[in-house]
Amino acid sequence: MKKIMVLNGVNLNLLGTREPQVYGTTTLKDIEGQVSAFCDSKGAQCACFQSNHEGELVELIHRAAAEGYDGVVLNAGAYSHYSIALRDAIASVPVPVIEVHISNIYAREEFRHHSVLSEVCRGVLCGFGPQGYVLAARALLGC
Amino acid sequence: MKKIMVLNGVNLNLLGTREPQVYGTTTLKDIEGQVSAFCDSKGAQCACFQSNHEGELVELIHRAAAEGYDGVVLNAGAYSHYSIALRDAIASVPVPVIEVHISNIYAREEFRHHSVLSEVCRGVLCGFGPQGYVLAARALLGC
Amino acid sequence: MKKIMVLNGVNLNLLGTREPQVYGTTTLKDIEGQVSAFCDSKGAQCACFQSNHEGELVELIHRAAAEGYDGVVLNAGAYSHYSIALRDAIASVPVPVIEVHISNIYAREEFRHHSVLSEVCRGVLCGFGPQGYVLAARALLGC
Amino acid sequence: MKKIMVLNGVNLNLLGTREPQVYGTTTLKDIEGQVSAFCDSKGAQCACFQSNHEGELVELIHRAAAEGYDGVVLNAGAYSHYSIALRDAIASVPVPVIEVHISNIYAREEFRHHSVLSEVCRGVLCGFGPQGYVLAARALLGC
Amino acid sequence: MKKIMVLNGVNLNLLGTREPQVYGTTTLKDIEGQVSAFCDSKGAQCACFQSNHEGELVELIHRAAAEGYDGVVLNAGAYSHYSIALRDAIASVPVPVIEVHISNIYAREEFRHHSVLSEVCRGVLCGFGPQGYVLAARALLGC
Amino acid sequence: MKKIMVLNGVNLNLLGTREPQVYGTTTLKDIEGQVSAFCDSKGAQCACFQSNHEGELVELIHRAAAEGYDGVVLNAGAYSHYSIALRDAIASVPVPVIEVHISNIYAREEFRHHSVLSEVCRGVLCGFGPQGYVLAARALLGC
Amino acid sequence: MKKIMVLNGVNLNLLGTREPQVYGTTTLKDIEGQVSAFCDSKGAQCACFQSNHEGELVELIHRAAAEGYDGVVLNAGAYSHYSIALRDAIASVPVPVIEVHISNIYAREEFRHHSVLSEVCRGVLCGFGPQGYVLAARALLGC
Amino acid sequence: MKKIMVLNGVNLNLLGTREPQVYGTTTLKDIEGQVSAFCDSKGAQCACFQSNHEGELVELIHRAAAEGYDGVVLNAGAYSHYSIALRDAIASVPVPVIEVHISNIYAREEFRHHSVLSEVCRGVLCGFGPQGYVLAARALLGC
Amino acid sequence: MKKIMVLNGVNLNLLGTREPQVYGTTTLKDIEGQVSAFCDSKGAQCACFQSNHEGELVELIHRAAAEGYDGVVLNAGAYSHYSIALRDAIASVPVPVIEVHISNIYAREEFRHHSVLSEVCRGVLCGFGPQGYVLAARALLGC
Amino acid sequence: MKKIMVLNGVNLNLLGTREPQVYGTTTLKDIEGQVSAFCDSKGAQCACFQSNHEGELVELIHRAAAEGYDGVVLNAGAYSHYSIALRDAIASVPVPVIEVHISNIYAREEFRHHSVLSEVCRGVLCGFGPQGYVLAARALLGC
Amino acid sequence: MKKIMVLNGVNLNLLGTREPQVYGTTTLKDIEGQVSAFCDSKGAQCACFQSNHEGELVELIHRAAAEGYDGVVLNAGAYSHYSIALRDAIASVPVPVIEVHISNIYAREEFRHHSVLSEVCRGVLCGFGPQGYVLAARALLGC
Amino acid sequence: MKKIMVLNGVNLNLLGTREPQVYGTTTLKDIEGQVSAFCDSKGAQCACFQSNHEGELVELIHRAAAEGYDGVVLNAGAYSHYSIALRDAIASVPVPVIEVHISNIYAREEFRHHSVLSEVCRGVLCGFGPQGYVLAARALLGC
Repeated sequence: MKKIMVLNGVNLNLLGTREPQVYGTTTLKDIEGQVSAFCDSKGAQCACFQSNHEGELVELIHRAAAEGYDGVVLNAGAYSHYSIALRDAIASVPVPVIEVHISNIYAREEFRHHSVLSEVCRGVLCGFGPQGYVLAARALLGC
Repeated sequence: MKKIMVLNGVNLNLLGTREPQVYGTTTLKDIEGQVSAFCDSKGAQCACFQSNHEGELVELIHRAAAEGYDGVVLNAGAYSHYSIALRDAIASVPVPVIEVHISNIYAREEFRHHSVLSEVCRGVLCGFGPQGYVLAARALLGC
Repeated sequence: MKKIMVLNGVNLNLLGTREPQVYGTTTLKDIEGQVSAFCDSKGAQCACFQSNHEGELVELIHRAAAEGYDGVVLNAGAYSHYSIALRDAIASVPVPVIEVHISNIYAREEFRHHSVLSEVCRGVLCGFGPQGYVLAARALLGC
Repeated sequence: MKKIMVLNGVNLNLLGTREPQVYGTTTLKDIEGQVSAFCDSKGAQCACFQSNHEGELVELIHRAAAEGYDGVVLNAGAYSHYSIALRDAIASVPVPVIEVHISNIYAREEFRHHSVLSEVCRGVLCGFGPQGYVLAARALLGC
Repeated sequence: MKKIMVLNGVNLNLLGTREPQVYGTTTLKDIEGQVSAFCDSKGAQCACFQSNHEGELVELIHRAAAEGYDGVVLNAGAYSHYSIALRDAIASVPVPVIEVHISNIYAREEFRHHSVLSEVCRGVLCGFGPQGYVLAARALLGC
Repeated sequence: MKKIMVLNGVNLNLLGTREPQVYGTTTLKDIEGQVSAFCDSKGAQCACFQSNHEGELVELIHRAAAEGYDGVVLNAGAYSHYSIALRDAIASVPVPVIEVHISNIYAREEFRHHSVLSEVCRGVLCGFGPQGYVLAARALLGC
Repeated sequence: MKKIMVLNGVNLNLLGTREPQVYGTTTLKDIEGQVSAFCDSKGAQCACFQSNHEGELVELIHRAAAEGYDGVVLNAGAYSHYSIALRDAIASVPVPVIEVHISNIYAREEFRHHSVLSEVCRGVLCGFGPQGYVLAARALLGC
Repeated sequence: MKKIMVLNGVNLNLLGTREPQVYGTTTLKDIEGQVSAFCDSKGAQCACFQSNHEGELVELIHRAAAEGYDGVVLNAGAYSHYSIALRDAIASVPVPVIEVHISNIYAREEFRHHSVLSEVCRGVLCGFGPQGYVLAARALLGC
Repeated sequence: MKKIMVLNGVNLNLLGTREPQVYGTTTLKDIEGQVSAFCDSKGAQCACFQSNHEGELVELIHRAAAEGYDGVVLNAGAYSHYSIALRDAIASVPVPVIEVHISNIYAREEFRHHSVLSEVCRGVLCGFGPQGYVLAARALLGC
Repeated sequence: MKKIMVLNGVNLNLLGTREPQVYGTTTLKDIEGQVSAFCDSKGAQCACFQSNHEGELVELIHRAAAEGYDGVVLNAGAYSHYSIALRDAIASVPVPVIEVHISNIYAREEFRHHSVLSEVCRGVLCGFGPQGYVLAARALLGC
Repeated sequence: MKKIMVLNGVNLNLLGTREPQVYGTTTLKDIEGQVSAFCDSKGAQCACFQSNHEGELVELIHRAAAEGYDGVVLNAGAYSHYSIALRDAIASVPVPVIEVHISNIYAREEFRHHSVLSEVCRGVLCGFGPQGYVLAARALLGC
Repeated sequence: MKKIMVLNGVNLNLLGTREPQVYGTTTLKDIEGQVSAFCDSKGAQCACFQSNHEGELVELIHRAAAEGYDGVVLNAGAYSHYSIALRDAIASVPVPVIEVHISNIYAREEFRHHSVLSEVCRGVLCGFGPQGYVLAARALLGC
């Protein structure tokens, strides 16, 4: 049985209340519920985490490797744009990571156009709203 | 009945033979077949085009609007990186466009890291190989 | 009898429907009508062309020289910002070319602030809406 | 009865004697005469000013607003390239301003390619020699 | 019997008339004649093409591969400086391509100093006038 | 009764001992005492926090919103210069934040001249030493 | 008895009428009244000046030193962004200068993010509206 | 008796398993053992710490000062490239810090060529593998 | 009889009191006296001016041409670094101008390394203190 | 009888042993032999030099002029990328110089893409291996 | 018996007299003595060279390879920052080279922060004063 | 008796023959004669050297210090623009150095606008032709 980790980073605990014109009104709990339900329907396991701490996110990536996850769906939030620590963590483990952004980061402020994580992720997708997490899970599960 | 356009740009007619270590051995015909089959299975229509000509790609985007397509799955190839003409065509029409790249463009040469199209597309995805086209169609069809 | 060419480039066939808050509701046909009527009133001839194809625009510039036009009013659209091919075509012929933009390109996105054509054109004008074409014709006809 | 201000900036008092290979031999007085005559012929009023002082140019822009001018034809000379003070003055008033340059600034030194005023002007034209002032007046008067 | 393709790009149909102080008075027909004669003398075949259309140049590169040419002598004109499409076409085929420029592009405008094609060509030469085409053919034929 | 949060970031626990020629000899406790006394004198409440952890600072900003604070006086220390996470936290909440720096950051090393937080703060002040915290509290309390 | 100079620069005479959505409806006279009243209440003297002329602003800084002012509250307007002359004037005198901006310049256009004056001022504050002048006076008077 | 702190940063807990072609197969425990043994042999004390958390690394630097360490051997991992917080911590304490990298960071990705810590460290060494830690300890102990 | 103009720009009226560690204690009056005495000794005439106003400096350059001066010794102060207006004034007149700086501007702040005037001056000298004015006069008088 | 100089620069004495995967196994002696033989066959004289010293290369260029050489085939090695001294030497003499590189420098490290010599050479060629020297001699001898 | 070369570059003959506040008072002879004594103590041979000539340094690197040295300790002085010739020499030979700087180059002028040699050296160390040479020798000898 | 060194760098042996439209027809011997005669007339000694070798120029600067010269008049030619080695040599000795250029380097190619030597020279002068050497000698001798 395959298992994937859904990992949300900094400020994503505010989803649904934070700038709803950008991020919508779906809460993080809603998103975690949707992607978990999807994984169930495909016979896969799904564990969801959120942290505002760069160091914890690094350690959750380490743990995904240590515990034999088949893939990580990662929305690192603002850390995407400067956390070389997180980039190195991803490059250090054999687990494939899919980078997700809820909004289309290329249609926003200049500094959001570049993610330091993308180069070491398996694939990247953005602009699909909450559906993006399910699409990423599909990519990992190949369905 | 929804209909979507799958639009492939410059050099993508060579898929399957061109740099297979980067793009795999799946041909363009294979990809068009897969995404068409998927659309069929969802009760949607799918029309596939490929052109090496920037002007033709612009006019196919115009046509997608004129003929009432519900969305475009676009892999513009190298034009992604400099065709402001194509960017303006996308911005000029109300049809949502999803930008797709077979390889993870952020893990390749520096000049491929920037797509001038991304800002005006609905969403962007890359690195998922041929499966990316189907994921993009899912995003457009909402399934 | 003087004759001038009015040459519109990529996406300008959509004028009147494309982003009307930027480009207004006047269609290309309207503009061509206005500038033709103006030329008539001055006893000059005016031929109008539009193409979405960079190569065709290059060849229309070549043709302006071969057929002895007295000047070209050129709105190259997005090609203005990167088509060195078009720039070279203009520099290759003795026919004076006036660069026109409907909107004020300096009040828009950063990438529209630079036109690679301006250096080799006789004069440049922008921000005057459809009237800009007539002003450019005046400049060519000296009236 | 409409009234427009023709405002010339720094070093333009030397017109006709300064670098004639670039600016021609027409004097400032000639130009002011031509544009005044044109305005007269259209039933409009035209007031002409020249100053080498940035602060005075700013105050003339303020005055154009205070005295209800219908538009300003502005050739700010070298201040075009760095006077944010003048830019702010233009942005601060509701009077439309047309930026004019006698020579084609894009065909000259790199530092002349950028005008900090263009973004806040209604329209921009350059390269038409003295005729440019009349074309700008036409644009303001809509004729 | 070896065969090579001589491929000239945008604006090169004007050779002999365009800026003769830069490009000389030799016409494209002359150049094609010289290089064909040279190939004949070496027992090789030589096919010459010219196009102003980026997409056609891409497809001629594809065709060189499909029809088993032993090499391409390419002068892409202005496309050399921005056509990533052409660059990808060259990289996509196993046929060796020699990049030729008639003038010394490094002694001209800044924007001509960089060719996006050079990285994927076998060799590059410029500044040798029409003789450059023959030198390139020599390089391909090893004589 | 109004309440404000005084939030000090990384390395500010060392105040009074760290580089006294730059930051003075006042300790963090002193500063917190001064601003608390000031708030008391204005009938407002003041809660003071310090953390060296980016994630904790983010969560304190979240908490300021959740607990209904009327404003935050924030000296984020070095995080000011790169923590987009903190920037997003500030932008995510409706509580006004005033950015404070003890020294004049524009008179120091180049990399300190830019704060990624300033754009989303209500106001910014620097160079006023410990008094800056009280001035910021005044701004929030409007007195 | 302490005395401070309040010095407003270019276009600030328009305060209250210029872009009220950015600068509010308070006039310069209002602001000068508020800060004068504040100084009175603290037993200090306050002299207010405004000029649109860079040279006059330089000379007012010189005068502040010559006449023994205890400090200058300076809002140089657009000159803040390029007047090295004003910067040198401030650096040339021993009088402390506080730089004030009514709006948060870091939340506006890119070119307003950098002030060439900040490095040589005692402190900088922005985004506090008219209250900023009083806060600056407080900083100078230490109250 | 001298005492030194050996401080390893983010992702260095993975040493020996992470990208062994870059970092070798020596584990962090091995390295800590080697440098401890070396210190013992020189009659010095050595305390070893590792953390993935930027804030904790900052506090360990503070602690080195508070507890009177004679020097710190620091490999901050990815934080070396952007943690101004860590830079400020080092600059805030009188304890000499030696920056160590296992691999030659100048022979790797562009973004690894710059360490924001180097300017405030006593010395820097890289490319010596695990031996680098012992060389750094030698430098601190002067032997 | 030859006559030269000695023209000092912004803040140079403060010479002798302003930052004496940079500019020395010689006053402007002293310098004007020295260079006048030198000109006298060579049978030449020398007129000295100082202004803090860019527009006045421009007009003094115009006047040097109108009144037939044989050369100008110019220390424009801070305007050297950004006054394109002054640059154009110099380029507009046939009078040779020698640019002088008292200090070595290349050994000071980065922004002082570039003078926009140098390109259009006959010669440039800096770092020679008050003697520089006499050396410049020598260059103009050829002695 | 024509005579040409073949001039090889720094590190080229190592040819055949240095990075053979880049430069091949042909030695400098081989190359000099081939080009000499070619010149003989065309009735021309050929003198070959190599030096690792920038100053000597400069003086050999001077000598080519002094001794009436008809052309120089120059591979300056690494000096190509920064020796403005060599550039000036070439520009100082009327002898035509052809720049040669054995490998395709545009397909190697970024810093090798720019040669400061190219602008002042007659022509440039690279990527043709040892044959490049003969092609350059052909260009000089016009055969 | 192992042998290493200690190679000092330009201006290092002045060590002990040149800017002693930066480089200390130890002379080059002292340093060569220390590192020779160290090598002796480890049963290794050590040859010391100094040259101010780039070409000679290149040839000494060639010689290290030709004479079978086991490593080079290199302080190239100012050449470190721009000598691509030296960089290529190092890359051309199989002998490992350790780059040494006496001072911490990252704490000095901006232009000293980048060494073009580092990428091709085995390891780099700086800031350790004369001891750095011995540490480098240790690294080469593995002790 | 004072003694000064006149030091000319690379390519300056060609003076009088090299690009006379830039450098004039005066030979190096002429210039050395003029400056020697001038020194004689002032009772000072003058030694003249020229070298095309960077290392020799460095050593001549060293020698100026060792032999107690009172100053150096230096025209380093092209080395001015990149020889950090020469810059360091100048900074390493207490002898004042005056940088001279015959032409106005700021009116020539972009790459000649920056001299890496200027920062460490006492003064800089350019554009005065051969007279510049005498002016520099005057500056050193204070007459």
